[in-house]
Formats: sequence, structure tokens, C-alpha cells
Amino acid sequence: MSSTKPFLLYTGPTPNGYKVSVYLEELKALYPAVDYDVEYIDIMTNRQKEPWFIALNPNGRIPTLVDRSRNNFNVFETAAILLYLAQHYDKDNKFSFDAQTEADDYSEMLQWIFFAHGGVGPMQGQANHFNRFAPEDIPYAKKRYTDETKRLYGVLEIRLAAERDWLAGPGRGKLSIADFNVFPWVRIHEFSGIPSLDEWPNLKAWKERLLERPGVQAGCKVPK
Amino acid sequence: MSSTKPFLLYTGPTPNGYKVSVYLEELKALYPAVDYDVEYIDIMTNRQKEPWFIALNPNGRIPTLVDRSRNNFNVFETAAILLYLAQHYDKDNKFSFDAQTEADDYSEMLQWIFFAHGGVGPMQGQANHFNRFAPEDIPYAKKRYTDETKRLYGVLEIRLAAERDWLAGPGRGKLSIADFNVFPWVRIHEFSGIPSLDEWPNLKAWKERLLERPGVQAGCKVPK
Repeated sequence: MSSTKPFLLYTGPTPNGYKVSVYLEELKALYPAVDYDVEYIDIMTNRQKEPWFIALNPNGRIPTLVDRSRNNFNVFETAAILLYLAQHYDKDNKFSFDAQTEADDYSEMLQWIFFAHGGVGPMQGQANHFNRFAPEDIPYAKKRYTDETKRLYGVLEIRLAAERDWLAGPGRGKLSIADFNVFPWVRIHEFSGIPSLDEWPNLKAWKERLLERPGVQAGCKVPK
Repeated sequence: MSSTKPFLLYTGPTPNGYKVSVYLEELKALYPAVDYDVEYIDIMTNRQKEPWFIALNPNGRIPTLVDRSRNNFNVFETAAILLYLAQHYDKDNKFSFDAQTEADDYSEMLQWIFFAHGGVGPMQGQANHFNRFAPEDIPYAKKRYTDETKRLYGVLEIRLAAERDWLAGPGRGKLSIADFNVFPWVRIHEFSGIPSLDEWPNLKAWKERLLERPGVQAGCKVPK
């Protein structure tokens, strides 16, 4: 390949993929050095389980990032990719916090990242499975995961209702990777079996704020 | 309260609880300043959903840590607690890596932490639910989550089979919070419906290495 773009992103059109492409688009708009090639992985054909991909990511999942500008260092797990990009390529902490000088904000950002990574993502993913894809109709599981996703939205609502625009940061908060990390899941609530966000007005407004951003819009169109 | 111990840990006898108590015990053995009080939260009585607890952790989950020595800063989400403790109280990086000078090792540690936090924990948790607690017998869900837990053990096996003792760090690796963060789940494989680890010999040996450590043993007895 003749490309000289610093990153190669293996991704697909899924919430986990969009987390990274949204952040990369937002970074690109601020930092001229940030640019990336995209390799589309069609997860329906299980390309992500092929040996060459398992060598990059033993979990066989998208997204996975290769940083050509740092010896082809590769990073898997969405949230680990966001934190890697923040550390190395968002030197002004436009979408993060300084771990040393803003230690408490940094920790709160991590708390909300882990909340989404261990809660919203896996549970809404199960809602998708049982509401959309499972070969059997299992009302118990549909209800379990739809209810749990709603409960988790309620936790985000508690946070945002405390006079906040964004999940982490002092005062009304600062847009950060904590927001990018959960937004692509909330965005597809309807697909997952939750027709409306009216029950969580602050979460709904937060989602709208994010959707207005050109970087977010661009990131949600990757891969093309 | 007359206690002057620097930390107060709200916890219960679950894998997520043990992650933090194991790490605290390991830190305690190395750093005299580290000590903690334990408040047992009986999750069967839903104490973690009471308003006073929701004020500490809007997700209503154990463990939650209060750091009395830093203005009662409170931290929720297990892995965020581990990273918080590492940053502030493991200054020699005995069980972590320096984010600046060991950036790649630090990232790999995060990758394995997120792998466990979004994969092993939630999926093995679902295996527990359907194999142990669900009011209905649902073979599809039992198989789905038992199989997924096994697949995730297989990913850990790939990592450890590459001539490694520990998940992160150069060469054979260094025992770190990446290990503490997933060990309490692997430890209860039998409870979760996976009778033996023989299929994953390197994972089995890793588990045994951890079980031999006095700090790990002590941590797995908290709360008393």
C-alpha cells in the first residue's frame, strides 16, 4: 500500500465501530496530523475470525486500530483505542482530561467509559440479539435485556439531569470520549427495541447535541 | 466513625468485588499507607439500590470505593477503581505500567482490562444467570452464554500460550491489574457451568499462579 496516513482502522458499521470513527473525525477537524485509512470488515462473513485478523486482535472483533506512525502498534477493544488516541494524539485534551493535573475528572471519565463498556454495550447488544437476530423467540430474554438497557439509560439520565451537558468534567461537563463511547449505542435505541427516549429527556437532549456535530455525523458514515 | 483508614470499600462476595479487594490486599503488602475499611453490601436485599448508595454510584452496583484521603472522592466501576488505585497509590507501578514511559505496555494492559470488562464479566455473568438463577429453563440462553464464556477463555489462552505468565508487560509479562481484573471470574468457572479448565492449560496454570499468592487469597475473603 502506498498510503501514508498514520492510522489504519479495521471497522464495520456497528456501534463499537462508530465510537472510534466519530472520535477520529472529531480529532481530524482539530489536528491536521490525524488521518486514517479504513478497512471494512464484513462481520457477516466472519472475516474478523480469520487468522490474519486474530493476529491483530485475538478476540476477533472490530474495531481494531493499527498506528503506522508508532511502529504499527495495534490496539483492540474500542475504549482502549479511544484512550490510546487521547493519550498520543489529543495532546491538548480537547476531548479528554489530563490524568495528572485533572486526576478526578480523568477518573470520572474512566468511570463512565467503563459503565458503558461493561453495561450499555453488552446489555444492549443482547437486546439486539434477542429482539432482532435470535433464531428462537424467547420473551424472557427479550424482556431481560430491553429492561436492563432501559435501566442503564436511566443511570445516564441521572448523571445528565444533574445540570450537565456532558458525562464528565466540571460544571456542565466537557464533551469527551466518555460521550463518544456510549453515544453510538444510545443512537440506535429504536433498533434495539426502545422506540423513544422521551422517558429520559436529558439523555435525549444529549443525543441531539451530539447528532448536530459534523464530526459525529461524519464518523457515523464510516465505513462508507 | 472513628476510623482513619484511607479507604472505605463498599463490596460484596462477587467477582467484581474481589477484583478490588485482591488488588487492595496486594497493595497493602507493599505500601504501608494502604489500608481500608469494608462495608458489606448484601446485594440480595438490594441495599445497593437505596438512595444513599445511588448517590455514591448511580449504577447501584458494588464495588464502590470512597477515598477518605482525597476529600472522599468516590469511584465506581471495578476497573476504574483499579486504575484509580494504580495511579494514586501504586507509585512504583508494581502492578501497573507508567502511562508515559511504558506507553505501549500501559495500552496493552488497558486492552486486556477492557476485554474482560466488556466480555468475560458480562457474558459469564449471563451464564451464571441462566445456568443458576433464572426462573425459566432456557437451553438456548444457557448454551449461548456458556459457549461465549468458553470462547473468551480461549482468547485468554491464546494470549497466555504465547510464552507468557501474565496478560500484560514485555517478555513473559508482569503481574498487573489486567490479571487481577479477570481472575475472579475465571476462578468461579465451575459455578458458571464450565466444570474444568483443562481445555485451556495456560489459563489454568495462570489461575493456579494467582491462587498461590497470599494477597489474592486474602482478597478473596473480603468481605468476611
